[in-house]
Amino acid sequence: MTGTLVLLRHGESEWNAKNLFTGWVDVDLNAKGETEARRGGELLKEQDLLPDVVHTSLLRRAIRTSEIALHTADRHWIPVKRSWRLNERHYGALQGKDKKQTLEQYGEEQFMLWRRSYDVPPPPIEDGNEFSQFADPRYAALPPELKPRSECLKDVLLRALPYWYDAIVPDLIAGKTVLVAAHGNSLRAIVKHLDQISDEAIAKLNIPTGIPLRYNLDDALRPLNPGGEYLDPETAKEAAAAVANQGR
Amino acid sequence: MTGTLVLLRHGESEWNAKNLFTGWVDVDLNAKGETEARRGGELLKEQDLLPDVVHTSLLRRAIRTSEIALHTADRHWIPVKRSWRLNERHYGALQGKDKKQTLEQYGEEQFMLWRRSYDVPPPPIEDGNEFSQFADPRYAALPPELKPRSECLKDVLLRALPYWYDAIVPDLIAGKTVLVAAHGNSLRAIVKHLDQISDEAIAKLNIPTGIPLRYNLDDALRPLNPGGEYLDPETAKEAAAAVANQGR
Repeated sequence: MTGTLVLLRHGESEWNAKNLFTGWVDVDLNAKGETEARRGGELLKEQDLLPDVVHTSLLRRAIRTSEIALHTADRHWIPVKRSWRLNERHYGALQGKDKKQTLEQYGEEQFMLWRRSYDVPPPPIEDGNEFSQFADPRYAALPPELKPRSECLKDVLLRALPYWYDAIVPDLIAGKTVLVAAHGNSLRAIVKHLDQISDEAIAKLNIPTGIPLRYNLDDALRPLNPGGEYLDPETAKEAAAAVANQGR
Repeated sequence: MTGTLVLLRHGESEWNAKNLFTGWVDVDLNAKGETEARRGGELLKEQDLLPDVVHTSLLRRAIRTSEIALHTADRHWIPVKRSWRLNERHYGALQGKDKKQTLEQYGEEQFMLWRRSYDVPPPPIEDGNEFSQFADPRYAALPPELKPRSECLKDVLLRALPYWYDAIVPDLIAGKTVLVAAHGNSLRAIVKHLDQISDEAIAKLNIPTGIPLRYNLDDALRPLNPGGEYLDPETAKEAAAAVANQGR
Protein backbone atom coordinates (compact mmCIF):
# COMPACT_ATOMS: atom_id res chain seq x y z
CA MET A 1 0.00 0.00 0.00
CA THR A 2 1.29 3.44 -0.90
CA GLY A 3 1.32 5.90 1.93
CA THR A 4 -0.34 9.19 2.63
CA LEU A 5 1.35 12.54 2.17
CA VAL A 6 0.54 15.47 4.45
CA LEU A 7 1.93 18.89 3.56
CA LEU A 8 2.05 21.59 6.23
CA ARG A 9 3.16 25.16 5.61
CA HIS A 10 4.62 26.85 8.69
CA GLY A 11 2.47 29.27 10.65
CA GLU A 12 2.92 33.03 10.57
CA SER A 13 6.46 34.20 11.26
CA GLU A 14 7.71 37.47 12.68
CA TRP A 15 8.52 38.59 9.14
CA ASN A 16 5.26 37.38 7.57
CA ALA A 17 3.55 39.70 10.04
CA LYS A 18 5.86 42.59 9.07
CA ASN A 19 5.31 41.79 5.37
CA LEU A 20 9.03 41.32 4.64
CA PHE A 21 10.56 38.90 2.13
CA THR A 22 12.08 36.13 4.22
CA GLY A 23 13.54 33.36 2.07
CA TRP A 24 16.43 31.67 3.86
CA VAL A 25 16.52 34.17 6.76
CA ASP A 26 15.89 32.09 9.87
CA VAL A 27 13.12 34.03 11.62
CA ASP A 28 10.92 32.48 14.30
CA LEU A 29 7.17 31.94 14.42
CA ASN A 30 5.20 34.67 16.16
CA ALA A 31 2.40 33.93 18.65
CA LYS A 32 -0.17 33.63 15.84
CA GLY A 33 2.11 31.18 14.04
CA GLU A 34 2.39 29.05 17.18
CA THR A 35 -1.40 29.01 17.47
CA GLU A 36 -1.69 27.99 13.81
CA ALA A 37 0.79 25.16 14.37
CA ARG A 38 -1.22 23.90 17.36
CA ARG A 39 -4.40 24.05 15.27
CA GLY A 40 -2.61 22.05 12.57
CA GLY A 41 -1.76 19.40 15.15
CA GLU A 42 -5.35 19.35 16.43
CA LEU A 43 -6.63 18.78 12.88
CA LEU A 44 -4.23 15.86 12.44
CA LYS A 45 -5.42 14.36 15.72
CA GLU A 46 -9.15 15.00 15.18
CA GLN A 47 -9.04 13.45 11.72
CA ASP A 48 -6.79 10.60 12.83
CA LEU A 49 -4.16 11.47 10.24
CA LEU A 50 -1.19 10.57 12.40
CA PRO A 51 2.25 10.95 10.80
CA ASP A 52 4.73 8.07 11.04
CA VAL A 53 7.65 10.26 10.02
CA VAL A 54 8.28 13.99 9.50
CA HIS A 55 10.49 15.78 6.99
CA THR A 56 11.40 19.44 7.59
CA SER A 57 13.58 22.16 6.12
CA LEU A 58 16.54 23.54 8.07
CA LEU A 59 14.62 26.69 8.96
CA ARG A 60 13.29 27.42 12.43
CA ARG A 61 9.76 28.39 11.41
CA ALA A 62 9.14 25.02 9.71
CA ILE A 63 10.94 23.04 12.42
CA ARG A 64 8.96 24.71 15.23
CA THR A 65 5.70 24.29 13.32
CA SER A 66 6.39 20.56 13.03
CA GLU A 67 7.38 20.30 16.70
CA ILE A 68 4.30 22.13 17.97
CA ALA A 69 1.92 20.27 15.64
CA LEU A 70 3.42 16.89 16.52
CA HIS A 71 3.37 17.52 20.28
CA THR A 72 -0.29 18.52 19.93
CA ALA A 73 -1.08 15.35 17.96
CA ASP A 74 0.89 13.16 20.45
CA ARG A 75 3.31 12.21 17.66
CA HIS A 76 6.36 14.06 19.05
CA TRP A 77 8.27 10.75 19.15
CA ILE A 78 8.25 9.91 15.40
CA PRO A 79 11.48 9.92 13.37
CA VAL A 80 12.61 13.31 12.02
CA LYS A 81 14.53 14.02 8.83
CA ARG A 82 15.67 17.44 7.67
CA SER A 83 17.12 18.90 4.50
CA TRP A 84 18.08 22.30 3.08
CA ARG A 85 16.31 21.01 -0.06
CA LEU A 86 12.97 21.72 1.67
CA ASN A 87 13.98 25.30 2.55
CA GLU A 88 11.93 28.26 1.38
CA ARG A 89 12.85 29.80 -1.96
CA HIS A 90 15.94 31.99 -1.62
CA TYR A 91 14.71 35.50 -2.23
CA GLY A 92 18.11 36.91 -3.19
CA ALA A 93 18.63 40.64 -2.69
CA LEU A 94 14.96 41.03 -1.71
CA GLN A 95 15.47 39.19 1.61
CA GLY A 96 14.69 41.54 4.47
CA LYS A 97 12.90 44.02 2.20
CA ASP A 98 9.34 45.22 2.70
CA LYS A 99 6.91 43.68 0.20
CA LYS A 100 4.78 46.80 -0.10
CA GLN A 101 7.79 49.08 -0.60
CA THR A 102 9.21 46.67 -3.17
CA LEU A 103 5.88 46.72 -5.03
CA GLU A 104 5.86 50.52 -5.06
CA GLN A 105 9.52 50.79 -6.02
CA TYR A 106 9.54 48.29 -8.90
CA GLY A 107 5.89 48.30 -9.99
CA GLU A 108 3.25 45.62 -10.19
CA GLU A 109 4.66 43.77 -13.17
CA GLN A 110 8.21 43.31 -11.88
CA PHE A 111 6.92 42.56 -8.38
CA MET A 112 4.62 39.79 -9.57
CA LEU A 113 7.33 38.43 -11.85
CA TRP A 114 9.63 38.00 -8.85
CA ARG A 115 6.88 36.65 -6.62
CA ARG A 116 5.08 34.31 -8.95
CA SER A 117 6.86 33.74 -12.26
CA TYR A 118 8.14 30.23 -12.63
CA ASP A 119 11.60 31.01 -13.95
CA VAL A 120 12.60 34.60 -13.16
CA PRO A 121 14.68 34.80 -9.96
CA PRO A 122 14.99 38.01 -7.94
CA PRO A 123 18.33 39.89 -8.08
CA PRO A 124 21.13 37.83 -6.48
CA ILE A 125 22.22 38.47 -2.90
CA GLU A 126 25.65 40.12 -2.68
CA ASP A 127 28.53 38.93 -0.52
CA GLY A 128 28.41 40.82 2.76
CA ASN A 129 24.63 41.31 2.67
CA GLU A 130 23.50 41.08 6.29
CA PHE A 131 20.97 38.40 5.34
CA SER A 132 23.44 36.18 3.50
CA GLN A 133 23.77 32.73 5.05
CA PHE A 134 26.95 31.66 3.30
CA ALA A 135 28.76 31.41 6.64
CA ASP A 136 25.92 29.63 8.43
CA PRO A 137 27.21 26.33 9.90
CA ARG A 138 24.06 24.48 8.85
CA TYR A 139 25.11 24.91 5.21
CA ALA A 140 28.81 24.19 5.82
CA ALA A 141 28.64 20.91 3.90
CA LEU A 142 27.23 22.57 0.76
CA PRO A 143 29.79 23.45 -1.92
CA PRO A 144 29.52 27.02 -3.28
CA GLU A 145 27.61 25.98 -6.41
CA LEU A 146 24.79 24.59 -4.25
CA LYS A 147 24.44 27.71 -2.10
CA PRO A 148 21.82 29.80 -3.88
CA ARG A 149 22.19 33.56 -4.34
CA SER A 150 18.58 33.78 -5.50
CA GLU A 151 15.98 31.29 -6.67
CA CYS A 152 12.92 31.17 -8.86
CA LEU A 153 10.30 28.47 -8.27
CA LYS A 154 11.90 26.36 -10.99
CA ASP A 155 15.19 26.40 -9.05
CA VAL A 156 13.33 25.29 -5.92
CA LEU A 157 11.67 22.44 -7.80
CA LEU A 158 14.99 21.28 -9.22
CA ARG A 159 16.72 21.21 -5.84
CA ALA A 160 13.72 19.79 -3.94
CA LEU A 161 13.05 16.89 -6.31
CA PRO A 162 16.17 14.87 -5.38
CA TYR A 163 15.04 14.94 -1.75
CA TRP A 164 11.48 14.06 -2.78
CA TYR A 165 12.71 11.02 -4.68
CA ASP A 166 15.48 9.90 -2.31
CA ALA A 167 13.97 10.57 1.12
CA ILE A 168 10.21 11.15 0.97
CA VAL A 169 9.15 8.66 -1.73
CA PRO A 170 10.78 5.67 0.06
CA ASP A 171 8.73 6.48 3.18
CA LEU A 172 5.56 6.68 1.05
CA ILE A 173 6.34 3.43 -0.77
CA ALA A 174 6.79 1.83 2.65
CA GLY A 175 3.15 2.73 3.37
CA LYS A 176 3.84 5.46 5.91
CA THR A 177 1.88 8.61 6.63
CA VAL A 178 4.50 11.24 5.83
CA LEU A 179 4.37 14.80 7.14
CA VAL A 180 6.36 17.42 5.21
CA ALA A 181 6.61 20.63 7.24
CA ALA A 182 8.03 23.30 4.99
CA HIS A 183 7.39 26.59 3.20
CA GLY A 184 5.09 28.30 0.71
CA ASN A 185 7.38 27.75 -2.24
CA SER A 186 9.01 24.41 -1.45
CA LEU A 187 5.49 23.03 -0.96
CA ARG A 188 4.24 24.69 -4.18
CA ALA A 189 7.12 22.94 -5.95
CA ILE A 190 6.06 19.55 -4.59
CA VAL A 191 2.41 20.23 -5.46
CA LYS A 192 3.38 21.34 -8.99
CA HIS A 193 5.21 18.07 -9.45
CA LEU A 194 2.43 15.91 -7.94
CA ASP A 195 -0.48 17.55 -9.73
CA GLN A 196 1.50 18.19 -12.92
CA ILE A 197 0.56 21.85 -12.87
CA SER A 198 1.80 23.94 -15.81
CA ASP A 199 4.47 26.62 -15.44
CA GLU A 200 1.76 29.24 -15.99
CA ALA A 201 -0.97 27.83 -13.75
CA ILE A 202 1.34 27.40 -10.73
CA ALA A 203 1.50 31.21 -10.42
CA LYS A 204 -2.07 31.23 -9.10
CA LEU A 205 -1.63 28.42 -6.59
CA ASN A 206 -1.25 29.61 -3.00
CA ILE A 207 -0.86 27.35 0.01
CA PRO A 208 -2.26 28.69 3.30
CA THR A 209 -0.31 28.45 6.55
CA GLY A 210 -0.94 25.90 9.28
CA ILE A 211 -3.63 23.79 7.56
CA PRO A 212 -2.55 20.23 6.75
CA LEU A 213 -3.06 19.28 3.08
CA ARG A 214 -3.60 15.59 2.47
CA TYR A 215 -2.71 13.65 -0.67
CA ASN A 216 -3.63 10.01 -1.17
CA LEU A 217 -1.22 8.54 -3.70
CA ASP A 218 -1.47 5.56 -6.01
CA ASP A 219 1.32 3.06 -6.63
CA ALA A 220 2.91 5.39 -9.19
CA LEU A 221 2.86 8.21 -6.60
CA ARG A 222 0.09 10.03 -8.50
CA PRO A 223 -2.64 11.74 -6.45
CA LEU A 224 -5.88 9.79 -6.14
CA ASN A 225 -7.33 13.13 -4.97
CA PRO A 226 -5.80 15.68 -7.38
CA GLY A 227 -5.14 19.00 -5.66
CA GLY A 228 -5.23 17.27 -2.31
CA GLU A 229 -7.66 17.92 0.52
CA TYR A 230 -7.20 20.50 3.26
CA LEU A 231 -8.18 19.23 6.69
CA ASP A 232 -10.03 22.53 7.19
CA PRO A 233 -11.20 23.42 3.65
CA GLU A 234 -13.12 26.58 4.51
CA THR A 235 -10.33 28.28 6.39
CA ALA A 236 -7.89 27.16 3.69
CA LYS A 237 -9.95 28.90 1.00
CA GLU A 238 -10.05 32.20 2.88
CA ALA A 239 -6.37 32.01 3.78
CA ALA A 240 -5.22 31.24 0.22
CA ALA A 241 -7.02 34.36 -1.01
CA ALA A 242 -5.23 36.42 1.65
CA VAL A 243 -1.81 35.07 0.59
CA ALA A 244 -2.53 36.06 -3.02
CA ASN A 245 -3.08 39.64 -1.89
CA GLN A 246 0.22 40.11 -0.03
CA GLY A 247 1.93 43.37 -0.81
CA ARG A 248 -1.36 45.15 -1.50
CA MET B 1 39.58 12.89 16.45
CA THR B 2 37.02 11.39 18.79
CA GLY B 3 34.04 13.56 19.47
CA THR B 4 32.56 15.19 22.50
CA LEU B 5 29.63 13.78 24.44
CA VAL B 6 27.09 16.07 26.10
CA LEU B 7 24.51 14.52 28.42
CA LEU B 8 21.40 16.50 29.29
CA ARG B 9 18.74 15.34 31.72
CA HIS B 10 15.28 16.76 31.00
CA GLY B 11 14.04 19.67 33.09
CA GLU B 12 11.38 19.34 35.77
CA SER B 13 8.21 17.60 34.63
CA GLU B 14 4.67 17.88 35.92
CA TRP B 15 5.19 14.67 37.87
CA ASN B 16 8.67 15.57 39.19
CA ALA B 17 6.96 18.57 40.78
CA LYS B 18 4.22 16.37 42.26
CA ASN B 19 6.87 13.88 43.47
CA LEU B 20 5.35 10.92 41.60
CA PHE B 21 7.22 8.00 40.06
CA THR B 22 7.09 8.60 36.31
CA GLY B 23 9.08 5.99 34.37
CA TRP B 24 7.59 5.48 30.91
CA VAL B 25 4.51 7.66 31.56
CA ASP B 26 4.73 10.44 28.98
CA VAL B 27 4.24 13.56 31.08
CA ASP B 28 5.22 17.01 29.85
CA LEU B 29 7.72 19.53 31.23
CA ASN B 30 6.26 22.15 33.54
CA ALA B 31 7.16 25.85 33.32
CA LYS B 32 10.24 25.36 35.52
CA GLY B 33 11.35 22.49 33.29
CA GLU B 34 11.04 24.70 30.21
CA THR B 35 13.15 27.36 31.91
CA GLU B 36 15.76 24.74 32.80
CA ALA B 37 15.86 23.56 29.19
CA ARG B 38 16.38 27.13 27.97
CA ARG B 39 19.17 27.60 30.52
CA GLY B 40 20.74 24.36 29.25
CA GLY B 41 20.68 25.77 25.72
CA GLU B 42 22.20 29.06 26.90
CA LEU B 43 25.04 27.17 28.58
CA LEU B 44 25.75 25.25 25.37
CA LYS B 45 25.81 28.52 23.43
CA GLU B 46 27.84 30.53 25.96
CA GLN B 47 30.47 27.80 26.19
CA ASP B 48 30.46 27.18 22.43
CA LEU B 49 29.62 23.51 22.90
CA LEU B 50 27.39 23.24 19.86
CA PRO B 51 25.92 19.81 19.14
CA ASP B 52 26.19 18.36 15.63
CA VAL B 53 23.56 15.71 16.30
CA VAL B 54 21.06 14.92 19.05
CA HIS B 55 19.81 11.59 20.39
CA THR B 56 16.64 11.50 22.49
CA SER B 57 14.33 8.98 24.12
CA LEU B 58 10.74 8.58 22.89
CA LEU B 59 9.39 10.51 25.86
CA ARG B 60 7.99 14.01 25.61
CA ARG B 61 9.96 15.53 28.51
CA ALA B 62 13.31 14.61 26.96
CA ILE B 63 12.22 15.51 23.42
CA ARG B 64 10.94 18.95 24.49
CA THR B 65 14.05 19.59 26.56
CA SER B 66 16.19 18.90 23.50
CA GLU B 67 13.99 21.07 21.27
CA ILE B 68 13.98 24.04 23.65
CA ALA B 69 17.73 23.78 24.38
CA LEU B 70 18.60 23.46 20.69
CA HIS B 71 16.38 26.37 19.61
CA THR B 72 18.05 28.47 22.31
CA ALA B 73 21.52 27.46 21.12
CA ASP B 74 20.56 28.06 17.43
CA ARG B 75 21.11 24.36 16.69
CA HIS B 76 17.46 23.48 16.02
CA TRP B 77 18.42 22.29 12.52
CA ILE B 78 20.79 19.43 13.45
CA PRO B 79 19.90 15.79 12.75
CA VAL B 80 17.72 14.06 15.35
CA LYS B 81 17.68 10.40 16.29
CA ARG B 82 15.38 8.80 18.85
CA SER B 83 15.13 5.45 20.57
CA TRP B 84 13.08 3.76 23.28
CA ARG B 85 16.48 2.50 24.48
CA LEU B 86 17.14 5.96 25.95
CA ASN B 87 13.80 6.00 27.82
CA GLU B 88 13.65 6.47 31.57
CA ARG B 89 13.74 3.33 33.69
CA HIS B 90 10.36 1.62 33.72
CA TYR B 91 9.12 1.95 37.27
CA GLY B 92 6.68 -0.96 37.06
CA ALA B 93 3.72 -0.88 39.44
CA LEU B 94 5.15 2.23 41.14
CA GLN B 95 4.42 4.44 38.09
CA GLY B 96 1.96 7.15 39.07
CA LYS B 97 2.52 6.57 42.80
CA ASP B 98 3.59 9.27 45.24
CA LYS B 99 7.24 8.92 46.30
CA LYS B 100 6.63 10.08 49.85
CA GLN B 101 3.63 7.78 50.35
CA THR B 102 5.60 4.88 48.90
CA LEU B 103 8.43 5.61 51.33
CA GLU B 104 6.00 5.64 54.26
CA GLN B 105 4.15 2.53 53.08
CA TYR B 106 7.15 0.32 52.36
CA GLY B 107 9.80 1.82 54.62
CA GLU B 108 13.19 3.34 53.97
CA GLU B 109 15.01 0.12 53.12
CA GLN B 110 12.58 -1.18 50.49
CA PHE B 111 12.13 2.33 49.06
CA MET B 112 15.84 2.88 48.58
CA LEU B 113 16.25 -0.61 47.17
CA TRP B 114 13.71 0.18 44.44
CA ARG B 115 15.11 3.64 43.83
CA ARG B 116 18.80 3.01 43.90
CA SER B 117 19.74 -0.66 43.99
CA TYR B 118 21.46 -1.79 40.84
CA ASP B 119 19.57 -5.01 40.28
CA VAL B 120 16.28 -5.03 42.20
CA PRO B 121 13.36 -3.93 39.99
CA PRO B 122 10.10 -2.56 41.44
CA PRO B 123 7.01 -4.83 41.29
CA PRO B 124 5.91 -5.41 37.68
CA ILE B 125 3.12 -3.38 36.12
CA GLU B 126 -0.07 -5.40 35.60
CA ASP B 127 -2.05 -5.64 32.37
CA GLY B 128 -4.79 -3.03 32.50
CA ASN B 129 -2.85 -0.66 34.76
CA GLU B 130 -3.80 2.85 33.61
CA PHE B 131 -0.13 3.74 33.22
CA SER B 132 0.76 0.72 31.08
CA GLN B 133 2.03 1.64 27.64
CA PHE B 134 1.71 -1.74 25.99
CA ALA B 135 -0.83 -0.35 23.51
CA ASP B 136 1.12 2.84 22.78
CA PRO B 137 1.78 3.11 19.02
CA ARG B 138 5.34 4.31 19.59
CA TYR B 139 6.22 0.87 20.94
CA ALA B 140 4.21 -1.05 18.33
CA ALA B 141 7.37 -2.43 16.71
CA LEU B 142 8.66 -3.91 19.99
CA PRO B 143 7.91 -7.61 20.54
CA PRO B 144 6.43 -8.46 23.96
CA GLU B 145 9.74 -9.63 25.41
CA LEU B 146 11.23 -6.15 24.84
CA LYS B 147 8.37 -4.26 26.48
CA PRO B 148 9.43 -3.93 30.11
CA ARG B 149 7.02 -4.50 32.98
CA SER B 150 9.55 -3.06 35.41
CA GLU B 151 13.25 -2.28 35.26
CA CYS B 152 16.19 -1.98 37.62
CA LEU B 153 19.19 0.12 36.60
CA LYS B 154 20.95 -2.99 35.33
CA ASP B 155 18.04 -3.63 32.94
CA VAL B 156 18.32 -0.04 31.69
CA LEU B 157 22.05 -0.42 31.11
CA LEU B 158 21.55 -3.67 29.19
CA ARG B 159 18.92 -2.18 26.87
CA ALA B 160 20.67 1.19 26.46
CA LEU B 161 24.10 -0.22 25.56
CA PRO B 162 23.11 -1.54 22.10
CA TYR B 163 21.96 1.98 21.18
CA TRP B 164 25.10 3.48 22.69
CA TYR B 165 27.28 1.21 20.56
CA ASP B 166 25.23 1.23 17.35
CA ALA B 167 24.01 4.82 17.15
CA ILE B 168 25.91 7.14 19.51
CA VAL B 169 29.45 5.74 19.26
CA PRO B 170 29.55 6.03 15.42
CA ASP B 171 28.72 9.75 15.74
CA LEU B 172 31.48 10.16 18.35
CA ILE B 173 34.01 8.24 16.25
CA ALA B 174 33.11 10.57 13.36
CA GLY B 175 34.32 13.47 15.53
CA LYS B 176 30.91 14.97 16.22
CA THR B 177 29.68 16.82 19.28
CA VAL B 178 26.84 14.54 20.35
CA LEU B 179 23.97 15.65 22.59
CA VAL B 180 22.06 12.91 24.42
CA ALA B 181 18.85 14.32 25.89
CA ALA B 182 17.39 11.70 28.18
CA HIS B 183 16.52 10.77 31.75
CA GLY B 184 17.96 10.36 35.23
CA ASN B 185 18.41 6.62 34.94
CA SER B 186 19.23 6.16 31.24
CA LEU B 187 21.96 8.80 31.71
CA ARG B 188 23.17 7.15 34.94
CA ALA B 189 23.48 3.92 32.95
CA ILE B 190 25.65 5.63 30.30
CA VAL B 191 27.76 7.32 32.98
CA LYS B 192 28.20 4.01 34.83
CA HIS B 193 29.47 2.45 31.63
CA LEU B 194 31.76 5.38 30.71
CA ASP B 195 33.28 5.90 34.14
CA GLN B 196 33.25 2.19 35.01
CA ILE B 197 31.43 2.86 38.24
CA SER B 198 30.80 -0.16 40.46
CA ASP B 199 27.32 -1.59 41.03
CA GLU B 200 27.50 -0.25 44.61
CA ALA B 201 28.89 3.22 43.91
CA ILE B 202 26.34 4.05 41.20
CA ALA B 203 23.63 4.21 43.90
CA LYS B 204 25.07 7.51 45.12
CA LEU B 205 25.41 9.14 41.71
CA ASN B 206 22.65 11.63 40.89
CA ILE B 207 22.43 13.68 37.71
CA PRO B 208 20.77 17.09 38.04
CA THR B 209 18.19 18.31 35.53
CA GLY B 210 18.88 20.79 32.75
CA ILE B 211 22.65 21.20 33.18
CA PRO B 212 24.73 19.86 30.27
CA LEU B 213 27.41 17.36 31.35
CA ARG B 214 30.42 17.23 29.04
CA TYR B 215 32.68 14.23 28.44
CA ASN B 216 35.82 14.42 26.33
CA LEU B 217 36.58 10.92 25.09
CA ASP B 218 39.78 9.29 23.90
CA ASP B 219 40.05 6.98 20.90
CA ALA B 220 38.87 4.03 22.98
CA LEU B 221 35.81 6.08 24.06
CA ARG B 222 37.18 6.41 27.61
CA PRO B 223 36.67 9.75 29.39
CA LEU B 224 39.70 12.07 29.37
CA ASN B 225 37.83 13.91 32.12
CA PRO B 226 36.46 11.10 34.34
CA GLY B 227 33.09 12.02 35.82
CA GLY B 228 32.63 14.65 33.14
CA GLU B 229 32.27 18.39 33.64
CA TYR B 230 28.99 20.20 34.23
CA LEU B 231 28.71 23.45 32.29
CA ASP B 232 27.41 25.04 35.51
CA PRO B 233 29.26 23.09 38.24
CA GLU B 234 27.95 25.02 41.25
CA THR B 235 24.29 24.67 40.39
CA ALA B 236 24.89 21.02 39.48
CA LYS B 237 26.31 20.32 42.94
CA GLU B 238 23.32 21.84 44.73
CA ALA B 239 20.84 20.14 42.40
CA ALA B 240 22.40 16.69 42.75
CA ALA B 241 22.05 16.94 46.51
CA ALA B 242 18.36 17.82 46.11
CA VAL B 243 17.73 14.80 43.85
CA ALA B 244 19.28 12.51 46.47
CA ASN B 245 16.73 13.74 49.01
CA GLN B 246 13.58 13.05 46.95
CA GLY B 247 10.85 11.36 48.91
CA ARG B 248 12.00 12.94 52.20
